[in-house]
Amino acid sequence: MLITETKINVRYAETDKMGVVYHGNYAMYYEVARTDALKQIGITYKKLEENGVMMPVIQLSSKFIKSAKYDDELTIICKMKTYSGVRVEIEYELYNEHKELINTGETTLVYVDMKTNKPTRCPNALAEKMKPFFE
Amino acid sequence: MLITETKINVRYAETDKMGVVYHGNYAMYYEVARTDALKQIGITYKKLEENGVMMPVIQLSSKFIKSAKYDDELTIICKMKTYSGVRVEIEYELYNEHKELINTGETTLVYVDMKTNKPTRCPNALAEKMKPFFE
Amino acid sequence: MLITETKINVRYAETDKMGVVYHGNYAMYYEVARTDALKQIGITYKKLEENGVMMPVIQLSSKFIKSAKYDDELTIICKMKTYSGVRVEIEYELYNEHKELINTGETTLVYVDMKTNKPTRCPNALAEKMKPFFE
Amino acid sequence: MLITETKINVRYAETDKMGVVYHGNYAMYYEVARTDALKQIGITYKKLEENGVMMPVIQLSSKFIKSAKYDDELTIICKMKTYSGVRVEIEYELYNEHKELINTGETTLVYVDMKTNKPTRCPNALAEKMKPFFE
Repeated sequence: MLITETKINVRYAETDKMGVVYHGNYAMYYEVARTDALKQIGITYKKLEENGVMMPVIQLSSKFIKSAKYDDELTIICKMKTYSGVRVEIEYELYNEHKELINTGETTLVYVDMKTNKPTRCPNALAEKMKPFFE
Repeated sequence: MLITETKINVRYAETDKMGVVYHGNYAMYYEVARTDALKQIGITYKKLEENGVMMPVIQLSSKFIKSAKYDDELTIICKMKTYSGVRVEIEYELYNEHKELINTGETTLVYVDMKTNKPTRCPNALAEKMKPFFE
Repeated sequence: MLITETKINVRYAETDKMGVVYHGNYAMYYEVARTDALKQIGITYKKLEENGVMMPVIQLSSKFIKSAKYDDELTIICKMKTYSGVRVEIEYELYNEHKELINTGETTLVYVDMKTNKPTRCPNALAEKMKPFFE
Repeated sequence: MLITETKINVRYAETDKMGVVYHGNYAMYYEVARTDALKQIGITYKKLEENGVMMPVIQLSSKFIKSAKYDDELTIICKMKTYSGVRVEIEYELYNEHKELINTGETTLVYVDMKTNKPTRCPNALAEKMKPFFE
């Protein structure tokens, strides 16, 4: 399993009139975390797309435990649990500055060949970087 | 159960570089659908907040079956399954113009007293409007 | 000049912690208005892109006069002032339900050939629909 | 004048189907830059609001010179030109990794007393931090 940590600051644009982060924005926080996870092991999602493979999200779930407020620094723990089959399963835990768990999430992504728009296998470039974390 | 139907058009701002709706925007589509559901039975969520009760989302899940494209007219079927306890459970089905099911979602909301920030019961104003659909 | 009117309802996701529409979302409201303007004269922006011409915004300005609140029904007056040269100039006026002017905006768009990524002329399909409004 | 520099990475959510950053998202980038500018001189906008003063944007303009792409690291130069009167004027310059100027913007903000919802003066806490940069 690959476990990484990413920090983000809540933007004003991401809050809503309840005075806290709009629940719909957590999906974007997950995106930022998994993008950063790949960077931390030396690969970019951008590069994967440039090489013809995109990874759309096919399933998403979230539990909203506590609110996140404007300018809070959030720590996102990203746990990539599978990568080698047809699906990539990732779990997220978000903590505020008081180390309180405020949100958990899960996403399932698939590999899609951008030319054929069909499911494909994990690109070698990604598999090589991931392998050491799954031994 | 209260079942309503709402139509929306995909905005350019809601697409991403895959050329389709960004997956994180479906949470907003669900919001539009349940807001409209309340309007269809003669009440507004705005009014509920003005009367001191807000309804934050505490759980969300989505399945992304097919893509939605820019300017697609989507039909959202919104099924409010409970309202009277401490939780409101709502299911969503999104269809494109070809009547294909493209997305399903579920949200759980709670009633929160905006003064105390504590869970509360379903406001009478809402309960009265909902009751006929659950007999 | 082509003058059209479009109505939108403010979504919860579009508000921020000031309790009003986040200023950055007005650009999207302008987008919705000009998209709708084209539909009202029998053409879609989607079609223009399908035929190989996109219209990126190269200039934008806004004045924020009064706030828009959650669920407000806003009326957007969209004034397309030019279309035939290399630039399309559009002005927007947003009114709330009390007919108060709450926001004005201006955008400049250009025609770009999606294959060459270079500026191009107004597509015939659009010019034909626009012409009657500029005689 | 206070001049600061802030770096951001373009998120997938911020792109649109043109494959580049949606023009409406630059307002948010400006927000991130000016929030960071205040932090760099030892104050937070969050604190200003906690002390009862908010700073809504009353005017915004942007020129879109080149596109920003997914995962681009953008450098935002933020020039706070006035702070002491009733208006705060800020200019922005955005550069991509090739040091090309891709976007310029200007915003005007005002100080508003959150209790009365009326214009007010620059809070002392902010004035003290700003003063050295305007001597």
